[in-house]
Amino acid sequence: MRVLALLDGTLADPDAPLLRVDDLGLVRGDGIFETILVVDGKPRELDPHLDRLARSAAILELPEPDRAAFERATSLVLDNWSGGAEMALKLVYTRGIEGGDGTPTGFALGLPISAKVLAQRAAGISAVTLDRGIEPGLAERAPWLLLGAKTLSYAVNMAALREAERRGAEEVVFTTSSGSVLEGPTSTLLAVNGRTITTPPATLGILPGTTQAALFRAAKREGWTVVVEPIPAADLHTADGVFLVSSVRKVTRVHTLDGKPLTDASALATELADLYESEY
Amino acid sequence: MRVLALLDGTLADPDAPLLRVDDLGLVRGDGIFETILVVDGKPRELDPHLDRLARSAAILELPEPDRAAFERATSLVLDNWSGGAEMALKLVYTRGIEGGDGTPTGFALGLPISAKVLAQRAAGISAVTLDRGIEPGLAERAPWLLLGAKTLSYAVNMAALREAERRGAEEVVFTTSSGSVLEGPTSTLLAVNGRTITTPPATLGILPGTTQAALFRAAKREGWTVVVEPIPAADLHTADGVFLVSSVRKVTRVHTLDGKPLTDASALATELADLYESEY
Repeated sequence: MRVLALLDGTLADPDAPLLRVDDLGLVRGDGIFETILVVDGKPRELDPHLDRLARSAAILELPEPDRAAFERATSLVLDNWSGGAEMALKLVYTRGIEGGDGTPTGFALGLPISAKVLAQRAAGISAVTLDRGIEPGLAERAPWLLLGAKTLSYAVNMAALREAERRGAEEVVFTTSSGSVLEGPTSTLLAVNGRTITTPPATLGILPGTTQAALFRAAKREGWTVVVEPIPAADLHTADGVFLVSSVRKVTRVHTLDGKPLTDASALATELADLYESEY
Repeated sequence: MRVLALLDGTLADPDAPLLRVDDLGLVRGDGIFETILVVDGKPRELDPHLDRLARSAAILELPEPDRAAFERATSLVLDNWSGGAEMALKLVYTRGIEGGDGTPTGFALGLPISAKVLAQRAAGISAVTLDRGIEPGLAERAPWLLLGAKTLSYAVNMAALREAERRGAEEVVFTTSSGSVLEGPTSTLLAVNGRTITTPPATLGILPGTTQAALFRAAKREGWTVVVEPIPAADLHTADGVFLVSSVRKVTRVHTLDGKPLTDASALATELADLYESEY
């Protein structure tokens, strides 16, 4: 089942056409989005997601998203959902019609979590490292590259996932050209050693993760050490555990990297999953 | 006036919604496009544009575009156009509905040339150089970055144009981090010295230009030397002329770069414009 709500507070048919061909979200990938996990009718990290949507809008110089309208559309989707216990809620916001009056296009779409993601959460995933072609300093030096914004221009992320598939893997760990870990195409990377969880800094040109932040909150509370610093890709092979986390995938264990099995982190995965769930 | 034709050979209302919210062209910028200049009912470089559309599709592993269907949609737009002598014809092709049966979305949209582009053709433009964050070799080493494909994921190109505007200019010349010239966000760069026209090689990770190719054809026939090789950005300040060329902008002169006036190339601009027109 799918539920679609518009920013004007009305429901719409998700199977019917809604967008014009000259919407800049389509013809220029000129817009932003968020994907929020909803469990038992409760959206997780809604405020951090709406904060990030606003940050992305500021980076793209889009009009500030109407937070109340997105919250109302979110409630409308939740109220009309009769699907499973979990839902992926997608918020989309574009620059609107090319040559139009500047009114942005926006909507909230509730979707089931795919069977693939559910299976990967349980079984873990195989990933490959792929060069993202960016170097430290670039994001700050060249803000027009939009490296910290969650834009609709995701063709490269999708191409990277196809490359992973071609190499017999399911996911991607992007790296800088010099081999420092960045993020997944739609996830944040964590490396665990002992009671320390490390994630690369957003200043490298990656997205600050909402799920990573929630997990770090829980982990700190339980006495873990959480660190934000660069991770050489080679270190992933000696870590106690490597994870890709995101709203829909939660805390998913990477069991194989570039064809090589990583340290068995099954027990650690359960521990981190419990930590994350303890936040809700 | 605007005319919209679909790949099934029918016309549609360009002001009415046509796309679903879960079209991958929108939610992932996962699709490709071409913009073709039509003058007096005749599309220019239609075959090279359709060839490039097919190349972009191959790079993105999209189903091969139905060339006959795009040609038919093109004819339909031309036959129903009652606007000015010139039209910009946009061909768009996306991966279709997320989780759907894989049927791509495609259409042809005829639009007027904007007054801004017409004015810039006549008066020339002011441009700024901006770091595109890519280095020679990256495009070949990391094909998943899609550097040679004309994708719908153009948010960075649009952001660069806003940065140019912020700096008081109208256009952008992208450079590598080490200062080699690449291209404009929606155009190809040419530098002219004496009777030699130079453009940077597509292997740097830029788009092979259809207008540049047409102009090179005409120039060679008339005894000019045409060269495809890297251009240091500093060389633009000493060139006899610098031009940004594209289907809709034709051969547009850059009169100012990074706030510094370039060599006056007004006469050269007329000469190149005539050369280009001699192809049709």
